[in-house]
Amino acid sequence: MSSARTNDKKSTDAASLYALGLQVLTSNGVSEKLAAIVTDVLLEADRRGVASHGFTRLAGYIERVRRGLLDPSAEPEIVKDGEAIILMDGRNGFGAVAGVQATQLAAARANKYGMCWITVRNSNHFGIAGYYAHMLAQRGLAGIVFSNASPAVAAYGGKRATLGTNPIAIAVPTGDEPIMLDMATTTVARGKIRRAKAERRSIPLGLALDVDGQPTTDPEAALKGTLASLGGYKGYGLAVMIELLSGVVSGGRYLTEVRQVTDLSGTAGPCFTIIAADIGRLIGLDEYARRIDRFRSVLRQSGDENAEIYLPGEIENRRAREADKNGIALPADVVEAIEALSS
Amino acid sequence: MSSARTNDKKSTDAASLYALGLQVLTSNGVSEKLAAIVTDVLLEADRRGVASHGFTRLAGYIERVRRGLLDPSAEPEIVKDGEAIILMDGRNGFGAVAGVQATQLAAARANKYGMCWITVRNSNHFGIAGYYAHMLAQRGLAGIVFSNASPAVAAYGGKRATLGTNPIAIAVPTGDEPIMLDMATTTVARGKIRRAKAERRSIPLGLALDVDGQPTTDPEAALKGTLASLGGYKGYGLAVMIELLSGVVSGGRYLTEVRQVTDLSGTAGPCFTIIAADIGRLIGLDEYARRIDRFRSVLRQSGDENAEIYLPGEIENRRAREADKNGIALPADVVEAIEALSS
Repeated sequence: MSSARTNDKKSTDAASLYALGLQVLTSNGVSEKLAAIVTDVLLEADRRGVASHGFTRLAGYIERVRRGLLDPSAEPEIVKDGEAIILMDGRNGFGAVAGVQATQLAAARANKYGMCWITVRNSNHFGIAGYYAHMLAQRGLAGIVFSNASPAVAAYGGKRATLGTNPIAIAVPTGDEPIMLDMATTTVARGKIRRAKAERRSIPLGLALDVDGQPTTDPEAALKGTLASLGGYKGYGLAVMIELLSGVVSGGRYLTEVRQVTDLSGTAGPCFTIIAADIGRLIGLDEYARRIDRFRSVLRQSGDENAEIYLPGEIENRRAREADKNGIALPADVVEAIEALSS
Repeated sequence: MSSARTNDKKSTDAASLYALGLQVLTSNGVSEKLAAIVTDVLLEADRRGVASHGFTRLAGYIERVRRGLLDPSAEPEIVKDGEAIILMDGRNGFGAVAGVQATQLAAARANKYGMCWITVRNSNHFGIAGYYAHMLAQRGLAGIVFSNASPAVAAYGGKRATLGTNPIAIAVPTGDEPIMLDMATTTVARGKIRRAKAERRSIPLGLALDVDGQPTTDPEAALKGTLASLGGYKGYGLAVMIELLSGVVSGGRYLTEVRQVTDLSGTAGPCFTIIAADIGRLIGLDEYARRIDRFRSVLRQSGDENAEIYLPGEIENRRAREADKNGIALPADVVEAIEALSS
């Protein structure tokens, strides 16, 4: 049964998965240095339970490389250096490479000036936005990261997909693991619908509309139609502002110009922005960390006795620890597709 | 009939309303300079049709001044100057005064470094967050402004109100009027429920929960209970990150420490953050403005022939133009309460 088959899960330990990712990328002409970056970004999504942005994407990346639609050796370059605000060009390389290198530069400049804003144009799919916000938080900085994406959402009052799922991630350091929100500005991310389609599951009502603007439970109809904005006009408004502050402001692609990873008719070209703030300059990170502890405990005690109250990212942190212990369960078809790529 | 009475509207032109605000504030010991700031912030909310944050607030401000809970002559001071990141103390003055002066400083530093982040603690209700984001956009800068607020929202999975409605405003310059999103991270702002209570209207289901965590249509029960987060856990996550990056990071009040404007048992103490980015350094504001024009037209043409598709803030801009032409309609009880304050 094909539908049962695609639902099989294959559990792999993180180290083996990392080695497999490296092997697939390097055997397809990617340098070890850049392959390590791309693999780590994908693995982090799978560790955190965001399967839609993890290794399931690798085959699509390789397909773009093989067709000459993504330059596997490109690293981002600075187009305009405005001190605490910088424009970079991803030069059509891996989104993860542009993301990590831009984040490193943003951190360095935030350490110098207190703040830094970097917008990157001409990139590719960069995985979970949270990866980069998390990097900043691990360096003691607050991080805000957002990206445009290929059309998946209609304007409020509109019908055709013009806006992307335009994710935003916000992370802050704590004395322990970062607190991090990482969300699409739609009710769900498109990757989750794509995954439902691959696993032949239907989706709940309210997540998506078909091409006629009607609510649907069919993931295939949803992928052809549009995703519902988070909370209607507010999620639409957030997606618009993210698009303006990534695609429009950078001279890169925006709205319907951005291509889906699966659209092989040309380069993809999404844009993203990384904001880093050296919040330790305000009251010092030690005092701040003590306040975070109290913040946590006030929230946790605000429900009934056995209420489960989590801070943003806490469930994903727990999943990552479990993945390190018990391995990562990937759909069998995803693993097979990846293994086929290195042969 | 009292309920009909409070629904009466009294139309006043903006200039008369401005004069009335100035007169009320100065006759209550506020300097002309600071009264002008506070009046302009309130008036802008009424011009834009956000009545919940306009002159309806003035009586509450004056009440706090008269009771010694708000220092009408205080101006914010810099506590820590970290170059492109600054901590200010509002010294328990008017939130509008802290907001405007912090925004001016953020604009100056963004012009110097390219970016600036200012967090202000120990403030008071500062009106619409959009006022300050709009100020930045009018100076050719991108603005992001967010604030914590008195408890109104339960944590996701929690029951008691711990988080505020924690609004966020994002504005960008255009060749014309700024594009601006200004929203609470709840399904609706609490001011709208307060207004419904004053006008003895019920509220739709889904906006709020009563003290037992049950959905309610009674605005009074809603004000005693909690507001629903925008889209559930995503809106909750946004509110948490805003709280961390305003109240916690600044050494100011956060979560249940922040008092409602109407709670006269002590000072209020909300905190807010203003981020300014000199986006003109990237591709130049002229090229950027041309791209905005195309952006607008792609969105507007994405629906059926007569679809009404608006960019964030566009409806409010239109209301402001109408208000300048036809006057501002305030509820009769609000006008009477204000007039009583100057006598």
